[in-house]
Amino acid sequence: MGVFRIVVPLVTVLLICCSKQHSAVLYSSGFALLGYGATNWLIPRVGNSFIKIGLFGKDMSKPGRPVIPESVGAVSATVYLLIMLLCIPFMFYKYMVTTTSGGGHRDISILEPSEVPASFFPHDKLSEYLSSILCLESTILLGIADDLFDLRWRHKFFLPAVGAIPLLIVYYVDFGATHVLVPGFMQNWLKISTIDLGWLYYFYMVSMTIFCPNSINILAGINGLEVGQSIVLSILALINDGLYLTLGHSTTWENHRFSAILVLPFLWVSLALYNWNCWPAKVFVGDTYCYFAGMVFAVVGILGHFSKTMLMLFLPQILNFLYSVPQLFGLVPCPRHRLPRFNEKDGLLYPSRANLQETPAKAFFLPILKILHYFKLIELEFHEGRVVSCTNMTLINLVLVWLGPMREDKLCQAILQLQFAVGILAIVARHAMGKVLFGHDNLWTIE
Amino acid sequence: MGVFRIVVPLVTVLLICCSKQHSAVLYSSGFALLGYGATNWLIPRVGNSFIKIGLFGKDMSKPGRPVIPESVGAVSATVYLLIMLLCIPFMFYKYMVTTTSGGGHRDISILEPSEVPASFFPHDKLSEYLSSILCLESTILLGIADDLFDLRWRHKFFLPAVGAIPLLIVYYVDFGATHVLVPGFMQNWLKISTIDLGWLYYFYMVSMTIFCPNSINILAGINGLEVGQSIVLSILALINDGLYLTLGHSTTWENHRFSAILVLPFLWVSLALYNWNCWPAKVFVGDTYCYFAGMVFAVVGILGHFSKTMLMLFLPQILNFLYSVPQLFGLVPCPRHRLPRFNEKDGLLYPSRANLQETPAKAFFLPILKILHYFKLIELEFHEGRVVSCTNMTLINLVLVWLGPMREDKLCQAILQLQFAVGILAIVARHAMGKVLFGHDNLWTIE
Repeated sequence: MGVFRIVVPLVTVLLICCSKQHSAVLYSSGFALLGYGATNWLIPRVGNSFIKIGLFGKDMSKPGRPVIPESVGAVSATVYLLIMLLCIPFMFYKYMVTTTSGGGHRDISILEPSEVPASFFPHDKLSEYLSSILCLESTILLGIADDLFDLRWRHKFFLPAVGAIPLLIVYYVDFGATHVLVPGFMQNWLKISTIDLGWLYYFYMVSMTIFCPNSINILAGINGLEVGQSIVLSILALINDGLYLTLGHSTTWENHRFSAILVLPFLWVSLALYNWNCWPAKVFVGDTYCYFAGMVFAVVGILGHFSKTMLMLFLPQILNFLYSVPQLFGLVPCPRHRLPRFNEKDGLLYPSRANLQETPAKAFFLPILKILHYFKLIELEFHEGRVVSCTNMTLINLVLVWLGPMREDKLCQAILQLQFAVGILAIVARHAMGKVLFGHDNLWTIE
Repeated sequence: MGVFRIVVPLVTVLLICCSKQHSAVLYSSGFALLGYGATNWLIPRVGNSFIKIGLFGKDMSKPGRPVIPESVGAVSATVYLLIMLLCIPFMFYKYMVTTTSGGGHRDISILEPSEVPASFFPHDKLSEYLSSILCLESTILLGIADDLFDLRWRHKFFLPAVGAIPLLIVYYVDFGATHVLVPGFMQNWLKISTIDLGWLYYFYMVSMTIFCPNSINILAGINGLEVGQSIVLSILALINDGLYLTLGHSTTWENHRFSAILVLPFLWVSLALYNWNCWPAKVFVGDTYCYFAGMVFAVVGILGHFSKTMLMLFLPQILNFLYSVPQLFGLVPCPRHRLPRFNEKDGLLYPSRANLQETPAKAFFLPILKILHYFKLIELEFHEGRVVSCTNMTLINLVLVWLGPMREDKLCQAILQLQFAVGILAIVARHAMGKVLFGHDNLWTIE
């Protein structure tokens, strides 16, 4: 986690520097630290209670397969919610005293109710904030239900979309922007500068609230990876916010302040969870945390108006999903678990394999497997010229194919570093490409 | 449940009659019926899953103490949340199309962003609605945590107040009224017509969010009572709302419409739960439901501006709490369970007793116990002139002392009828007293 030791203080300094205009971010940072403390204090104390009610799992990649508490990420999620609720009075305090004569008296509005503008208080901001917390809380409830009851895919797949309703209503009412810019080189050709996607845009946002939670949930299986990738994503989002809040135009501040306010406490409760979930894990995070983490980014991307940039940060998750598709859709047999195989003798992880002898891959897909093998995107095992097995198609196994067997913590770090590098590249590319494709980029004040 | 068969259709007719001006109430009724169907369908299907993860309990008041699923009220609560989320677009639809040219286009605000009034959409109403759902959802999370982990009192006691923060912020911003009227006969004497309670009023509201959930949780222990009392409270609240929406001044409509919108779906998901929880119970409701139910009334009372009337409907719960105080605070020994005692021979419930021989009551309290005994508010058992036991101080046992041993369902009905009668009296008294004490009552348009 060497990267984080440098990046976290850097981001913090950056944020504090720009917090004069952005005092809400400062409040949020304060509460974030409180959240770190509370989560870090709570996790070791609730572990036994989790085991007692049956929330535990075996760590398959350790000698002796020790039993440790499962679903402990729910603690991070709950602390996050409490913090966000406690934050509300502080966030909106300045508006609350402006509309009165101060000192807790509301005499103005009582004496002259008709003369005080009703919309003094930023109700739209409050709605935005409340709808975000509501959406996250619904996601957490769904996660808890999944952790407890092991819901079936078809039951839980669309539920995040219901939780996202308040979010979409607020988006519709406050912004309602469903236009996407057409790249400069196509503008002359198409004779338009924007395309109105209309309801398709809402469909896209709903898809995002379904994709983000699930994509974190499937890039999982080794100690620290679920939390680690969420931490990397948070840092990347904060770097992007920091860029806008320092270099960007003031019209973009509101959105990125909102993003920073939501992501900062998330980063810190996740760091506390990482302390206990990193190799060798003392707790598992569970589905609750994965859904919750994914939804934080979906919410921030949607209401912060950078859902497309956010999706670029999810590139490793997207690639992991696309890479998994042949197994998820049954073109290649998919074993129940696709975790890397733990070798007790050397303590290293090896790519796990799908047996293609018992149930062979679909015939038309075999050549594609061979091409992937040729490009080292998969490892096939041959016996007398026939394919007998292939490595499971997950990013985790792919990294093992590329870099060879390694210890669990090294593997996790390699994936996180990859995610971080891809994310930084995505941020750079997004602002460079913005300039190239659209003739301007919304980060720079002076064109 | 004969009472309900008459009252429910009556209330429904009343509400539909006045729903021309109150179309949101109509939407809410529609979704409420959907909620009834969904809850009623789900409960028998999830019972086994609850038992499988350890959520079950023994029904102590049945021969053989059968094991049935516990915490099933969480299903009602979850369905309620889903309904309230699904409801949002319908509730606010008319505002959403007003601000645009219709057809899903938001061209007006895109073409002339500066000319469209920013506060066209009732963001304050949306905040109100979102904060209510958020508060309820937090309460449900707390309830689930309690059902799963059996939280200690000192841990869970203040948590509902954190969930109520969004509610209080919205109250502060939207109304901020902390004045209470001084009764007419005291106005001349005190020379003021209102008293500003200031922060005390917020303290009072916080207390209400703590009291309501807990008070339903402690008036419990026999089949159907938790849900039954919530149903009675809902009906009473709806009768009160119906009075305002038909006879009342149009300035009060907004508040009572809001109340009806929240209570109607609650009533119907509770009715579905009652089907399965009424004697002989096939499921237990659990703490989740009790907290959730209590919070619905606290939310409605606070944001509907009739928290004092609401508290009058809670009179049986308040009396039950006050009556319990000597045992809760250790003046009289309090056994672990204070459920009525089930006699397997005649199948009837008898008042349960606290043994005063092993641990006697505090000496100064003995005379009070004897006075209570004299007024038939408790039943003491004497042996050679000394008190050897007394009936446990709960409303349930008190009713058994008054009416003699009876079957569980009769007992439940007796308590519910008592609650209903007290509630109706409270509503009548509130509007009669309003006129006597303050010279006018806010129900009547013409003074």
